[in-house]
Amino acid sequence: METINFVLGYENLKIYQNDEMFKFSLDSIILSNFVSITESKKKILDIGTGNAIIPIILSTKTDAKITGVELQNESAKLAQKSVKINKLENQIEIMNKDIKDYYNECNSDTYDIIISNPPYFRYSENSNVNESKFKLIARHEYKLNVEDIIKISRKLLKNKGTLSIVHRPERLAEIVTLMKENNLEPKRICFVYPKKGSDANMLLIEGTKNGKPGLKVNDPIYIYENGEYTSELLNYFK
Amino acid sequence: METINFVLGYENLKIYQNDEMFKFSLDSIILSNFVSITESKKKILDIGTGNAIIPIILSTKTDAKITGVELQNESAKLAQKSVKINKLENQIEIMNKDIKDYYNECNSDTYDIIISNPPYFRYSENSNVNESKFKLIARHEYKLNVEDIIKISRKLLKNKGTLSIVHRPERLAEIVTLMKENNLEPKRICFVYPKKGSDANMLLIEGTKNGKPGLKVNDPIYIYENGEYTSELLNYFK
Repeated sequence: METINFVLGYENLKIYQNDEMFKFSLDSIILSNFVSITESKKKILDIGTGNAIIPIILSTKTDAKITGVELQNESAKLAQKSVKINKLENQIEIMNKDIKDYYNECNSDTYDIIISNPPYFRYSENSNVNESKFKLIARHEYKLNVEDIIKISRKLLKNKGTLSIVHRPERLAEIVTLMKENNLEPKRICFVYPKKGSDANMLLIEGTKNGKPGLKVNDPIYIYENGEYTSELLNYFK
Repeated sequence: METINFVLGYENLKIYQNDEMFKFSLDSIILSNFVSITESKKKILDIGTGNAIIPIILSTKTDAKITGVELQNESAKLAQKSVKINKLENQIEIMNKDIKDYYNECNSDTYDIIISNPPYFRYSENSNVNESKFKLIARHEYKLNVEDIIKISRKLLKNKGTLSIVHRPERLAEIVTLMKENNLEPKRICFVYPKKGSDANMLLIEGTKNGKPGLKVNDPIYIYENGEYTSELLNYFK
């Protein structure tokens, strides 16, 4: 069923979603707030944009041109509808194509920022044959894995451009190693914890193309306290 | 000046210190509480043991034999005095030698646990010519760097043995990469924050020799709240 939803912390934004597809999550909202935005950043690419939640949130923070690439036709259509209902057609372009094709077509050194909330699960480990094809592609590294995203960013980012992704903390060592191998120096990390006393369940990481070594680990984010969203999480959206 | 100090959280332990040398720090106490101890772990090595603060704290948690290696003669002497005053001669052995010599002499696959609070600062970047030789060696990667510790651990650890170190968060990417290159899979990380709202200033990391990929990021530790040690820090010592 197709619905229009509002976005936590952004009640004036509207997002089309469909129950049969992968819906936007808190992860994308938090990632959109983690990414370093400055006025000098003019071109942003969102890899696997889904229903365009990330470009739409970023539009509230920057005038940069934002391109969202989405493989799945149905998601890309919802994304386009969402861009339209928020009157963001001049700022956000949705491309319904495979990012790997776009990678081949696109000039190197094109983007200031690349952002992605990619599929989290290894395909072989977690594949669930009962899952819809939509969800399989959105959740599992079936068509795209984190290494692909890092290699794509290596080419498409400008010098000193940044890649920001959200992923599972279990993958930290692999992601850090891949980023360094591809000249994307990890510069900033934030861990998200469901609540006090729990291990982290979300990793936010930002790397700079040809950046100098040296990393900051930002203040952690807790999602819940006593079953409600923490005030720090709600403040993070402002 | 030589003094006897008590250890935060361990008021029955005594440690000899000397103002002219590098004194033990909170880092070593927190690291000693981070390391995974189980009954099956029978042999522990502390690289750069200083005044033996880490072996002495670990003696309260395990019956394993603990070897502390210390290059600097004066520190090693204090370490031996501290071991003696705590009546731990049967459990803790202090070796006054260069860990690199010990690395060459020692059989591979000897230790269940290797632990180290190493020099934090790159020698070239931060060298302070006014600093005493004692402090230079203890604080800067002058005689020993983190890569040395990881390579030493690769040889001296048993299969599935663990290396636990404390370091600065800035070095995370480098440490993770070096650990993976040397078959020490990062399995557990904890960040320590001076207080809420600050970036982390301490990284605790544990890797397992020939371990499977997959990492847990434990609940963070805050040191201070309103200028006092947090209750979580004090509880961490129990």
